[in-house]
Amino acid sequence: MIALPFTRPPHPLLLEPIVRHALEEDLGRAGDITSELTIPAETQATAKLMARKSGTIAGLVASQAAFRLVDPTTSFEVNAPDGSTVQAGTLLATISGPARALLSGERVALNFVGHLSGIATATRALVDAVAGTKARIVCTRKTTPGLRLVEKYAVRCGGGFNHRFGLDNAVLIKDNHLVAAGGIKPAIERVRAGLGHMAKVELEVDRLDQLEDALALGVDTILLDNMPPDTLRKAVALTNGRATLEASGNVTLATVRAIAETGVDYISAGGITHSAPNLDLGLDF
Amino acid sequence: MIALPFTRPPHPLLLEPIVRHALEEDLGRAGDITSELTIPAETQATAKLMARKSGTIAGLVASQAAFRLVDPTTSFEVNAPDGSTVQAGTLLATISGPARALLSGERVALNFVGHLSGIATATRALVDAVAGTKARIVCTRKTTPGLRLVEKYAVRCGGGFNHRFGLDNAVLIKDNHLVAAGGIKPAIERVRAGLGHMAKVELEVDRLDQLEDALALGVDTILLDNMPPDTLRKAVALTNGRATLEASGNVTLATVRAIAETGVDYISAGGITHSAPNLDLGLDF
Amino acid sequence: MIALPFTRPPHPLLLEPIVRHALEEDLGRAGDITSELTIPAETQATAKLMARKSGTIAGLVASQAAFRLVDPTTSFEVNAPDGSTVQAGTLLATISGPARALLSGERVALNFVGHLSGIATATRALVDAVAGTKARIVCTRKTTPGLRLVEKYAVRCGGGFNHRFGLDNAVLIKDNHLVAAGGIKPAIERVRAGLGHMAKVELEVDRLDQLEDALALGVDTILLDNMPPDTLRKAVALTNGRATLEASGNVTLATVRAIAETGVDYISAGGITHSAPNLDLGLDF
Amino acid sequence: MIALPFTRPPHPLLLEPIVRHALEEDLGRAGDITSELTIPAETQATAKLMARKSGTIAGLVASQAAFRLVDPTTSFEVNAPDGSTVQAGTLLATISGPARALLSGERVALNFVGHLSGIATATRALVDAVAGTKARIVCTRKTTPGLRLVEKYAVRCGGGFNHRFGLDNAVLIKDNHLVAAGGIKPAIERVRAGLGHMAKVELEVDRLDQLEDALALGVDTILLDNMPPDTLRKAVALTNGRATLEASGNVTLATVRAIAETGVDYISAGGITHSAPNLDLGLDF
Amino acid sequence: MIALPFTRPPHPLLLEPIVRHALEEDLGRAGDITSELTIPAETQATAKLMARKSGTIAGLVASQAAFRLVDPTTSFEVNAPDGSTVQAGTLLATISGPARALLSGERVALNFVGHLSGIATATRALVDAVAGTKARIVCTRKTTPGLRLVEKYAVRCGGGFNHRFGLDNAVLIKDNHLVAAGGIKPAIERVRAGLGHMAKVELEVDRLDQLEDALALGVDTILLDNMPPDTLRKAVALTNGRATLEASGNVTLATVRAIAETGVDYISAGGITHSAPNLDLGLDF
Amino acid sequence: MIALPFTRPPHPLLLEPIVRHALEEDLGRAGDITSELTIPAETQATAKLMARKSGTIAGLVASQAAFRLVDPTTSFEVNAPDGSTVQAGTLLATISGPARALLSGERVALNFVGHLSGIATATRALVDAVAGTKARIVCTRKTTPGLRLVEKYAVRCGGGFNHRFGLDNAVLIKDNHLVAAGGIKPAIERVRAGLGHMAKVELEVDRLDQLEDALALGVDTILLDNMPPDTLRKAVALTNGRATLEASGNVTLATVRAIAETGVDYISAGGITHSAPNLDLGLDF
Repeated sequence: MIALPFTRPPHPLLLEPIVRHALEEDLGRAGDITSELTIPAETQATAKLMARKSGTIAGLVASQAAFRLVDPTTSFEVNAPDGSTVQAGTLLATISGPARALLSGERVALNFVGHLSGIATATRALVDAVAGTKARIVCTRKTTPGLRLVEKYAVRCGGGFNHRFGLDNAVLIKDNHLVAAGGIKPAIERVRAGLGHMAKVELEVDRLDQLEDALALGVDTILLDNMPPDTLRKAVALTNGRATLEASGNVTLATVRAIAETGVDYISAGGITHSAPNLDLGLDF
Repeated sequence: MIALPFTRPPHPLLLEPIVRHALEEDLGRAGDITSELTIPAETQATAKLMARKSGTIAGLVASQAAFRLVDPTTSFEVNAPDGSTVQAGTLLATISGPARALLSGERVALNFVGHLSGIATATRALVDAVAGTKARIVCTRKTTPGLRLVEKYAVRCGGGFNHRFGLDNAVLIKDNHLVAAGGIKPAIERVRAGLGHMAKVELEVDRLDQLEDALALGVDTILLDNMPPDTLRKAVALTNGRATLEASGNVTLATVRAIAETGVDYISAGGITHSAPNLDLGLDF
Repeated sequence: MIALPFTRPPHPLLLEPIVRHALEEDLGRAGDITSELTIPAETQATAKLMARKSGTIAGLVASQAAFRLVDPTTSFEVNAPDGSTVQAGTLLATISGPARALLSGERVALNFVGHLSGIATATRALVDAVAGTKARIVCTRKTTPGLRLVEKYAVRCGGGFNHRFGLDNAVLIKDNHLVAAGGIKPAIERVRAGLGHMAKVELEVDRLDQLEDALALGVDTILLDNMPPDTLRKAVALTNGRATLEASGNVTLATVRAIAETGVDYISAGGITHSAPNLDLGLDF
Repeated sequence: MIALPFTRPPHPLLLEPIVRHALEEDLGRAGDITSELTIPAETQATAKLMARKSGTIAGLVASQAAFRLVDPTTSFEVNAPDGSTVQAGTLLATISGPARALLSGERVALNFVGHLSGIATATRALVDAVAGTKARIVCTRKTTPGLRLVEKYAVRCGGGFNHRFGLDNAVLIKDNHLVAAGGIKPAIERVRAGLGHMAKVELEVDRLDQLEDALALGVDTILLDNMPPDTLRKAVALTNGRATLEASGNVTLATVRAIAETGVDYISAGGITHSAPNLDLGLDF
Repeated sequence: MIALPFTRPPHPLLLEPIVRHALEEDLGRAGDITSELTIPAETQATAKLMARKSGTIAGLVASQAAFRLVDPTTSFEVNAPDGSTVQAGTLLATISGPARALLSGERVALNFVGHLSGIATATRALVDAVAGTKARIVCTRKTTPGLRLVEKYAVRCGGGFNHRFGLDNAVLIKDNHLVAAGGIKPAIERVRAGLGHMAKVELEVDRLDQLEDALALGVDTILLDNMPPDTLRKAVALTNGRATLEASGNVTLATVRAIAETGVDYISAGGITHSAPNLDLGLDF
Repeated sequence: MIALPFTRPPHPLLLEPIVRHALEEDLGRAGDITSELTIPAETQATAKLMARKSGTIAGLVASQAAFRLVDPTTSFEVNAPDGSTVQAGTLLATISGPARALLSGERVALNFVGHLSGIATATRALVDAVAGTKARIVCTRKTTPGLRLVEKYAVRCGGGFNHRFGLDNAVLIKDNHLVAAGGIKPAIERVRAGLGHMAKVELEVDRLDQLEDALALGVDTILLDNMPPDTLRKAVALTNGRATLEASGNVTLATVRAIAETGVDYISAGGITHSAPNLDLGLDF
């Protein structure tokens, strides 16, 4: 299927188990008893996946995998690929095959596309709101348990960027780590003593005086948490390119532009993954 | 831990694999490198799980399982059990143990409680809105892939009831099944010819004339889809107790009371599972 | 492959893991060392799956999956589909492909068909014995651990119907539940207070006086356990259509007709799944 | 728990996944809704596992694992260990703990013990029938898919011995292998050329003239398939200790003594695993 | 693909999960971000798998599976099959397909072939060193955790033979068993009392006087551990064909010939699996 | 158990499945038949894990998990923790418990410690060889399939550092990526356009003229592949701290010091994971 270059869909080896698990969850033990009892095995059908509301699409790759896993003889034509921003009423994909398969796979397919397009749409709104600034929108680890892989993909479909995928692929030192380590300096020194060269180090600071310490220690990224625009602007000036700056806290459509205009490099928003409403979709036969 | 009687938490055998999977997703291969590098193994800590906003709580059982799986020596005291409705600033639970364990489990624990409490809160709002009517709020199969078990639990925590858990444990005949089967009568007859006696049969109808047919055939439940309150009221009168009536379509806080007052038995709402925003929580050390 | 419409084979997504697990169990770590050592890889063969005794066939779908999993290049032609009742000596299926694959898959394929056809045959015997009455034969949860899905399918192949697939998809209140709940009335009330509208409720009664209570409370199904035909007949009269009646206990070929003639709706028999002898089959090269 | 020395229960690492899978199969997604709805969480109970018929017991280890997995606080006291032969009415085990746990685990626990005790009982009958001869009763690979491990244990509980656990741990050359290999001699030579020294080689022969060839080639075991006692006796004389002799085919309680008296070393019977009826058990609260 | 007859590659049902697991380990959650970011999806490429050093090849079957799992549209042509002994610079296989797939699968494919060819090469060296004697080289259970199946295959590719695949498919009685059992005689008697006829029994002896006891008891194989060639020669004479003799301990290229010339049947070497250096390979685009 | 602070053992949630898998691989279906047949269940024993050769220890955590999984009643006392460098004859750990459990777990436990200590020892040798320089030794992705997690831990135990854990947590651009992307500049630009801020970018260069381009583009790390010390020295001078420098290719004990003295920051060596011989260990009862 078609995917826009920047979206980079999850590798099928990683995506398929997630989709298979969702299908098993829905089929249970007895399977789709309604379709099996009411529809002859040989009945063929074609269904159109439609956007009922406007938004940015993500998750057609999961939907396609769902139908293929339910029945490998189904066909799936993509009309508006993941990453597209569409109007209400847009045809997203056309699925053909046994009517039973289309009905058995429908709910799981819609659950993926609706959920992920919701995330892509929320991301896209923030991305558009900061257009023209240098700020990039990034996601967090505040994802739905079990779906991090596909939710981070949805963020990319919405034009956002990905932060860490987990606890293991970058260091992010927060308040509680500092308390336990005895301050910024010993914390960073302990990290440098044990960490390899290919993992970045980020430090969360709440006040400008901490920022100076952080810069002096040469961390890669500084997370400026819950600072008002004025303070952020000072932080940008103070930093003067010596580290990547990420702002977080209370990031909404109403606030994001002002944050971006302070000159920070990245703005991280948990809400795009944990609180985005589904995009309304339908499967028309 | 304490759980309110009506909530019925998922059996640990079913819950634990979901939590374990979420932890593996977050720990990746290298684990929590930040905590391991900055915090001595022997440092102990106590953390308080706080509600930052008011809402109805769900998912403490998953959170407790997360900390226990990260480190069996942690303790978890529940202060406001699943099913409680709390104000902003309420202490939900107190967790003690190695600081590393608390920090390594924090995000997964919060992701569960935030997501599920969001669902419980959205459910509770609808339930409260129909108070005094006979209508019960039920969920749908529009759940997040992989989390149906716990999301249906969250609905119960919010005072709602559960519809089918999957395609396999009740029959729900929709438009497309009717088309393929050649109408309501042959569809129902085919179902009766093959279905055992312990599965219920529900039929979706869009117009009142279909309702008569459905009643004549003796289905257990009739799904009245997208009907305005006036039509619903007529359907209730027409049915006169001969079947359970479920209303669906455009169920929001603004509309649900009017729907409930028509006299239907159940109101199903996809939005409580697929579009509820997270409840804002924090873990204070 | 061909399957009789009423049999409804398990969805391949659910069936295949069961068959794969059985093959892994037989192949162990070193695989089929006998065939690999004695038979050249290029040797082709054709095998005929034959019924050595008369009976009703179930499990060819699992057998077909077994050969396909062992080697996707094998072909499997069904000559007497699942659900057929056949004489000794009947050709059931014809399998062609590499001789090694046919020999490596043989035992697992036969184990499935033999076991499931045994169940189908035992079911069919009871079904035929009650022909002309309204009684339907249903299975129980007394199935072989791990095989419930396919054993319930075998029951359907034998003309029987399925009871609950597990503890989760219907309520069945037995003696011990009543004792703990404090009687029939509080038990039913507690169930009604917590259960959604799409799960049925069945109550086990041992005496006729309990039946009155049950009917008054409006349960969907009443399980009449271990009652002699005379008592069953009285129960049928007393119920007079107000609930579905299921008889259980000491159901054998010798007793089932008399039970059916009492007018009960369903007769459940554990023996068809837990004690049916294998149907004798062979694979002739 | 107590286990008779000769029974050798499966290692818990191997047994537990089988039991866990059976519990998941029964609990489904929603769990034991009946018990959760009708029985308070704090209600405690004691149940007695009773033999309703006489027989040889196997599977208490699986039953114990089932209750422990459902709830680690349950206790399980063995009164008649696996391998015991008991009369109807014998107390097998006493289980105490939360009433919900006892009811949730009951069916799976009984399914294991009933099925495996059926196998042990059928095995014990054959073993007793050949008492005083040198013949040992062995099982085959005709086991229920997924349960080979525990069914072979049940055979040991009945006093029988185990044949191969799978295709991988011994060579057994049958007719079809011989045809493909071009005869006994080339088949054995190919096996010797590729097989390590720690796997035994068995050859199936249908006629006495094949036996001579087999003996000349020095195979470890000869499977005498479907030979009448007179022929078996000749085979024993001809072999004169040069190989282990195993008889198979039409082994029943009626025939086994005569087969054993021919002097063969082993008698293999598929029926003890694939067609043994359940032993009737009950759990009394 | 081509495989030399004696190598017997693992059955795909057993091999594929191992390869899939290795790919998942390398792809992590985010997948091959380098290739996805730098290489267009449509770019095709051809790569040549070359031996950089001379050696015996094993593992192309795993490598082929890796590329097929990463992308089923890749093609894999074998130029020097598993079991071949090749010179430095030999072309082993040619892989064509999307450049991304080739780069994403490269490391896992090379890790398998390099590791397994290292084992095959080490085995082949020992096998060649004993050429002309009757001794066969066998592996042990000293394998890399998780890879026993493929490492034993690599030993076969190198001309070696396989010992037990695990604790379960033959008896091997060592010192500590003898101590606990109270000596050779009671140990063997206990084994005979419980073991079926298709598992072999091996006994480890450290001194010649133990050998007499072992022979008297009729064990299948005797493991002569850490004996110098002179003692081995005496053991061979003493045994005189009454049991299979296996020598172990300090088996290296320097010592193996002398051991083989003593007349023992098998020589087991842990080093070929646990300490063989990788064979140097490269993938040239 | 004790672990040296810098070693950071894998989280038990990640380690245990690897150890469990290895045990299942060794126990097969029938389990440890030798120990079960020869040793009474009640026999207790104590075993001492000894280093037979000098080296650096890694993997005791896996060994401890193995014995605990085999039997939770075993005790495991660490005498020389992971990360220790010990002489031949040093006591590493003392294990007590049922003799059967000790013998059943022995091989898996030794396989882990022997393999991982081999890696730690090879790493430590390189680390010691570069002592006094600023160079750190790092591992690569040339690990044994399935064991990356524990092998990277073994590298840490030997004083080394970890490179990427997989394809997903840093970008490493090699020749073939450059060819497909059309050069260094477009490759880096494509990466910057799509990559988040928390993943580092490394570029492999083979010649000094490429180095200038790389530095101009601001990559985090430059991999200097297969350059002789003189060229490396020039690269260090040219870079002058503008990027982290990693040298690779032909890294052995003989060459590593000269490489380190050029002033590079990191030296990566595949051989420490893919070709380290086992450390010789024994378990004495």
